[in-house]
Amino acid sequence: MRAGRARLGYGRGTTSVAAPFAAPSEKDRPEMFEFYYAPETISLASHIALLDAGVEPRLHRLDIAAAEHQQGDYARLNPKLRVPTLVTPEGGALTETPAILAYLAQRFPAAGLAPRDPFAFAKLQEFASYVASTLHVAHAHRMRGHRWVDPANAQAIAAMQAKVPESVGAAFAYIEETYQLAPFVMGESYSFADPYLFTVSRWLKGDGVPAGAAPKVEAHRAMMLERPNVQAVLAAQAG
Amino acid sequence: MRAGRARLGYGRGTTSVAAPFAAPSEKDRPEMFEFYYAPETISLASHIALLDAGVEPRLHRLDIAAAEHQQGDYARLNPKLRVPTLVTPEGGALTETPAILAYLAQRFPAAGLAPRDPFAFAKLQEFASYVASTLHVAHAHRMRGHRWVDPANAQAIAAMQAKVPESVGAAFAYIEETYQLAPFVMGESYSFADPYLFTVSRWLKGDGVPAGAAPKVEAHRAMMLERPNVQAVLAAQAG
Repeated sequence: MRAGRARLGYGRGTTSVAAPFAAPSEKDRPEMFEFYYAPETISLASHIALLDAGVEPRLHRLDIAAAEHQQGDYARLNPKLRVPTLVTPEGGALTETPAILAYLAQRFPAAGLAPRDPFAFAKLQEFASYVASTLHVAHAHRMRGHRWVDPANAQAIAAMQAKVPESVGAAFAYIEETYQLAPFVMGESYSFADPYLFTVSRWLKGDGVPAGAAPKVEAHRAMMLERPNVQAVLAAQAG
Repeated sequence: MRAGRARLGYGRGTTSVAAPFAAPSEKDRPEMFEFYYAPETISLASHIALLDAGVEPRLHRLDIAAAEHQQGDYARLNPKLRVPTLVTPEGGALTETPAILAYLAQRFPAAGLAPRDPFAFAKLQEFASYVASTLHVAHAHRMRGHRWVDPANAQAIAAMQAKVPESVGAAFAYIEETYQLAPFVMGESYSFADPYLFTVSRWLKGDGVPAGAAPKVEAHRAMMLERPNVQAVLAAQAG
């Protein structure tokens, strides 16, 4: 982390979205969220959902290549040494993309990021869990194989990389066959599944999945790119 | 799946737990949950949580060794070809352990399987997501390495297996250091994190994690083994 170089959000106005579940201990204190992210990582999904929820987080950019997520204050904040981490006004840090997305949906229900019916909410969580524990994991075998074999074993690392087009492709094929994606993942209603799918769909080409293998997912990505919040986040992360 | 050999639950009484979120379309129809599981798998966690929620599911045992989860009606019910699957009175099937656990907590709030405050709920989901996408994934490299390399590559499969004691051990060390586990994962209140941790802690020895490496997790497992619902589920799955 670049100490002292935290980047501010999109202006300093107060959020106008109702937060009926919130019970801040100090009423006068603005609701400040601190968001630690790295460009070109899964943190993009939570960053978009923050804006969708009407939150203007204080941004902290981490340079993965420089291992900023593995040292100093950030390593104490998130000992898992991963991104993203969301520090909440409740006073605690929150990690794991599915947990952050569902939290934002429940903390800011007026934003409509998730249905309130338990079964419909569970179907959304089922999507998030699949992306996290199957699709993202398959993808991680391309660049993070050292998590699961001795990093010095170049043959095993290469064997993992060789499988990625098939394993990631199969995960996208499952999504393509299972979800409506018309226009949104769950159908007519936008939800936190949309920024999540948008984020991982950006990996298709790099993971070697043949162009045209997931046309509905590709159309969903193009649709998402038109959304102002997506454009704002991509600009902020590129800046 | 053994057609026609579905196993019934623990009696046929109606559930007495309130379900304030439920809106069954047919009021007279009993709330029947169908639970598809395989012994010695992650489905144990959801099975315990079902009983904790006061649900008496109709049980369907699948033989993983006979690939019953990869064929026939079950393959149509859950094209991911994994266990568990919970078929709900709402009419839909639900997969992914974190989604099932949170669903049961929200569908049967009187059972107290999760806090209702969004941040506290999110911290519980953070635990579930970590278990699903880090701990369980590390464990899966011992027996399911073919998901991430060519199954014919014996050297790569062996390289994955060799790393499991370290990667699974690190995940348990993180849990040991991070969570209260006194007596429950989240502290004084039981939650769906408890059957989830209990289930994966049964893998410690088989995954080659040295005895004594996670004493709080081991004590938690012993505590859980005393609970009547855990004993009932283990007996039902063994029977």
